[in-house]
Amino acid sequence: MIVGEPLVILLVEDNPDHADLVKRNLEDFQVANKIYHVEDGEAALHYLKGLGIYAGSVGNPRPDLILLDLRLPKIDGLEVLKEVKTDSGLRNIPVVVLTTSDAELDLAKAYEYHANSYVTKPVDFDSISDLLKDLGYYWLAWNKRPW
Amino acid sequence: MIVGEPLVILLVEDNPDHADLVKRNLEDFQVANKIYHVEDGEAALHYLKGLGIYAGSVGNPRPDLILLDLRLPKIDGLEVLKEVKTDSGLRNIPVVVLTTSDAELDLAKAYEYHANSYVTKPVDFDSISDLLKDLGYYWLAWNKRPW
Repeated sequence: MIVGEPLVILLVEDNPDHADLVKRNLEDFQVANKIYHVEDGEAALHYLKGLGIYAGSVGNPRPDLILLDLRLPKIDGLEVLKEVKTDSGLRNIPVVVLTTSDAELDLAKAYEYHANSYVTKPVDFDSISDLLKDLGYYWLAWNKRPW
Repeated sequence: MIVGEPLVILLVEDNPDHADLVKRNLEDFQVANKIYHVEDGEAALHYLKGLGIYAGSVGNPRPDLILLDLRLPKIDGLEVLKEVKTDSGLRNIPVVVLTTSDAELDLAKAYEYHANSYVTKPVDFDSISDLLKDLGYYWLAWNKRPW
């Protein structure tokens, strides 16, 4: 990777308020990054696999990190996770599940499908901001990726 | 989990200086935790599977987090990782590889074997301390586990 090139985050989130919060907290962060936002599970898989409106696209780089909501239109987040982690070309992209659900079944399934991490969105804005700063710094600055 | 019960970390590290650094930085942390330290890959698997000196043991609780060095005596860290992540009873324990190696092959293998995260040890003490605080806080306070 060229030094100084921004890291790429794919944000899969159907709630526009949550998406705005993530973008505001991670953009202009200590670690330069560019966020691509899709609103449903199908669009996420199309982005990652270069299908649909992303077919033949050169403008959508491979993400360094995927932030994945679970309750999504069209294709559920757990299904997106499963597809990413069983695709030999995609499975080494870190996927952090970022959801309001703390249901045991979601947690169990997410780990079974090899989510790298599972984080629940706090309810108040200050805590969300703290979470996103810690999460962003950990995954973008400390965690190493194999490319 | 009982509220206030310390989280359990299994530290797999053969370098005593590195192990001391991790223990000093994580013990008495904001998040209560208890660190079990083993010095080779075989001891790690024995601990996790209740074999060898851990057979029938009641004193060694399931870890909430495994910090795993790669270059280890007896059984290599990558082999430990592979065994943990293919064992249906263990695979949902988060494993963070914590190593001095930034070799592409180690990174690729670690992600192939479903390491949750891969972090390289900085060379200076202050940076190691920063890393361990961020890592500890992220994995012990923010990350959710399915039990």
